[in-house]
Amino acid sequence: MTEIQTKTTVDIELIQDMGGDYMVVAAAKVSTNGITAKEFASPEKGEENKGLINYLIKQRHGTPFEHSALTFFVHAPIFVWREWHRHRIGFSYNEESGRYKQLEPVFYLPDRERPMMKVDGWKPGRPKFTRCESDLIYSQLCSNLKSSYEYSYANYLRNLDMGIDPGLARDCLPVGIYSGCWVTCNPRSLMAFLSLRVHEPESIFVSYPLWEIDMAARTCEELFQKGWPITHKAFIENGRVAP
Amino acid sequence: MTEIQTKTTVDIELIQDMGGDYMVVAAAKVSTNGITAKEFASPEKGEENKGLINYLIKQRHGTPFEHSALTFFVHAPIFVWREWHRHRIGFSYNEESGRYKQLEPVFYLPDRERPMMKVDGWKPGRPKFTRCESDLIYSQLCSNLKSSYEYSYANYLRNLDMGIDPGLARDCLPVGIYSGCWVTCNPRSLMAFLSLRVHEPESIFVSYPLWEIDMAARTCEELFQKGWPITHKAFIENGRVAP
Amino acid sequence: MTEIQTKTTVDIELIQDMGGDYMVVAAAKVSTNGITAKEFASPEKGEENKGLINYLIKQRHGTPFEHSALTFFVHAPIFVWREWHRHRIGFSYNEESGRYKQLEPVFYLPDRERPMMKVDGWKPGRPKFTRCESDLIYSQLCSNLKSSYEYSYANYLRNLDMGIDPGLARDCLPVGIYSGCWVTCNPRSLMAFLSLRVHEPESIFVSYPLWEIDMAARTCEELFQKGWPITHKAFIENGRVAP
Amino acid sequence: MTEIQTKTTVDIELIQDMGGDYMVVAAAKVSTNGITAKEFASPEKGEENKGLINYLIKQRHGTPFEHSALTFFVHAPIFVWREWHRHRIGFSYNEESGRYKQLEPVFYLPDRERPMMKVDGWKPGRPKFTRCESDLIYSQLCSNLKSSYEYSYANYLRNLDMGIDPGLARDCLPVGIYSGCWVTCNPRSLMAFLSLRVHEPESIFVSYPLWEIDMAARTCEELFQKGWPITHKAFIENGRVAP
Repeated sequence: MTEIQTKTTVDIELIQDMGGDYMVVAAAKVSTNGITAKEFASPEKGEENKGLINYLIKQRHGTPFEHSALTFFVHAPIFVWREWHRHRIGFSYNEESGRYKQLEPVFYLPDRERPMMKVDGWKPGRPKFTRCESDLIYSQLCSNLKSSYEYSYANYLRNLDMGIDPGLARDCLPVGIYSGCWVTCNPRSLMAFLSLRVHEPESIFVSYPLWEIDMAARTCEELFQKGWPITHKAFIENGRVAP
Repeated sequence: MTEIQTKTTVDIELIQDMGGDYMVVAAAKVSTNGITAKEFASPEKGEENKGLINYLIKQRHGTPFEHSALTFFVHAPIFVWREWHRHRIGFSYNEESGRYKQLEPVFYLPDRERPMMKVDGWKPGRPKFTRCESDLIYSQLCSNLKSSYEYSYANYLRNLDMGIDPGLARDCLPVGIYSGCWVTCNPRSLMAFLSLRVHEPESIFVSYPLWEIDMAARTCEELFQKGWPITHKAFIENGRVAP
Repeated sequence: MTEIQTKTTVDIELIQDMGGDYMVVAAAKVSTNGITAKEFASPEKGEENKGLINYLIKQRHGTPFEHSALTFFVHAPIFVWREWHRHRIGFSYNEESGRYKQLEPVFYLPDRERPMMKVDGWKPGRPKFTRCESDLIYSQLCSNLKSSYEYSYANYLRNLDMGIDPGLARDCLPVGIYSGCWVTCNPRSLMAFLSLRVHEPESIFVSYPLWEIDMAARTCEELFQKGWPITHKAFIENGRVAP
Repeated sequence: MTEIQTKTTVDIELIQDMGGDYMVVAAAKVSTNGITAKEFASPEKGEENKGLINYLIKQRHGTPFEHSALTFFVHAPIFVWREWHRHRIGFSYNEESGRYKQLEPVFYLPDRERPMMKVDGWKPGRPKFTRCESDLIYSQLCSNLKSSYEYSYANYLRNLDMGIDPGLARDCLPVGIYSGCWVTCNPRSLMAFLSLRVHEPESIFVSYPLWEIDMAARTCEELFQKGWPITHKAFIENGRVAP
């Protein structure tokens, strides 16, 4: 049986970024200040104008948040990418290709604490889950997943060994396999993503995302908060509604 | 072992459409005719103005092709969706959800004629494959795929039976499983898709798409041709460059 | 002095549409019903599933609203287009061209009832105006506008008569001149437009749009309501927040 | 008569940028290198991989060019913005607002050398113009434009003085008035803009843009070339077709 690796996390790294709170201010100021708005394009102007940033978020003036950018490298299972890639606007992607390279045997297993047991009253659109209290069920689940991963990865290697198109040989690989992808977005598109992919009960519009993309989104949110602390604070304080 | 079904096709159905060649003409005419352009919005005007449509394609005036729409229902393996969903602009999607329903055990196997053997000189970006001349290799490939499908689908059912979140239980399912999705696009975004996802050696910019999405794209192209015959002809005659 | 025409309205005509409430339902059902969702694609299914539509709006599941389309012909002053064209996503445009045709001498004047006097406490982002109670001021305003229209249109004609590039000759034309444009959008992008361009005090996020684009947006809203009555009702009842 | 200023240029300043040729390489490498692609994210890797960049442009693999960004401040006449704002994808805008501030009396006049006389055989879609050989015609044109600018700006001030909504008072202002706008884009969206808005006879798809937006686009192109010299060279050498 092929050796595979398993992971319980989604790894995210900030590759580069541009702008900051002050660029939000400067871009917003162009409407009233015109040509002189660029005087606001220096870091201390963000803090001085936090009232303006709060106002923009609250009143949903979204465009000033588009003049900044972040590029993440993300290592996540395919079932996470299946959801992430549905974010079309203000998101750019370049992903590892099963057609052009041999995919690494790295697969997802849930952490012991991941809420995973269906509860009564579960319904589409608002799924609810609790912690698995049974060690037996958890270990059976992990064993089921892992044995499929191993079984299928072995078949994948056999297919490649016969000289089959890698884009066909991989059809047996489970969606739990990891794939690397570069993701570039801007604060506006990122806040739209966060509003849908992080579950926070106090949000004005509460979302019920898949646990694994929620975990990924929270990491993005932390990195975002570091570079745009005032914007992030306003986002939180106004109920996580993307402007 | 669980009974699974296999398919070798991507099934596509046209659900609805709007417009036609004449709407391309009418939308283009607004630049020179203004308010009276709507007189061109009747079916016979397409044929009368095929020179104009050809000119628009040739000179890459793309916007007149956005005032029409097509909605397809598509039943395709996940590895096809992984590519299709990367088309962000002018494409709308609603897909079957592994979080909200039990996925059907329908999986992809390649047709006997699908070019699948790597040839020397293969390189990323321009993969090239030939027919598999060995029945043994073909049957071994199908057997590898099918046994992974069965093995993993059985584990999926076991996970569900234990009451696990369906969005986690499915992590062992291979990308060869089928998923249904509604796709709405317009002639402009569709031609961009076709230019990248259909391999035609006589194209000005030759693409090397995955065989299965090429097969799907060709079906979309046939349905498009029926409703927009003049636009389609101009697209072909001008080297399949999307306007 | 050149004869010019004046108008106080924005004229909007629905050229074509696709879909309806039932297509929203059918597209949403694919997540739980997969391949059989298309059974919902018939007109009576909208009414039967109005609870679902309300749920989609309320929970901001936006994509099912993208599988429909509307094309409007709009005759509006350039200062309205300047704002409308800033709606980038899910909006397609083809407009009359000052480079390719002689623009008609049709210009905007405000209706007597248009709120137009600045009130104290006016501030950027939340402008507030009242009716002009002075007939003198109103007639002076109209006279100022009209004389500029006439003066500039006469210069435009003189420039054209000298054989000047129409794309340069028109630089003196005021933004009050009318221009025709085809606009194609979908219910989701249209609701985003309506949420920003119609002032309704009971909206969850109140907007303060320019009066003339508000007037135009209300006409679009009426046409939208006719074809998607259940979607429109849910939009209103949930505080005019675009999903 | 009100004092107005005139300009013959479009002024463009690069406010900030992110990435460079090496980020194009790194993003492209993720398809074959996965998690290790980030090793390519350092400046010298652009030069080392110029063959790859050329290949991406030539084969129209566009997404790697989306992981960089540029923000310009642009001061241009409204008739230029009317065209520029039609670029919807990968473009973000924040513009000076006639609703929230008093617009400055700065207006466009053509340079003496701007080709401006219609030539025989002119037709929509491929306008052609020559230099104006007559000083009289040129000065008459400038006088027509300038007198309209002055006449209308004076009316604008009169409207404001009466306390009229600035968003209505400005309806008499000509499209030749300047407006400031922040523009953020990425190399892919910028190349799409350049391919349509710069006239180069040796392009594979020759465009016939308005002279003033061509002038603006050339300035953007110079600034782009400085930061992405290898990408720019590949764009030129492959016939200015945006990937």
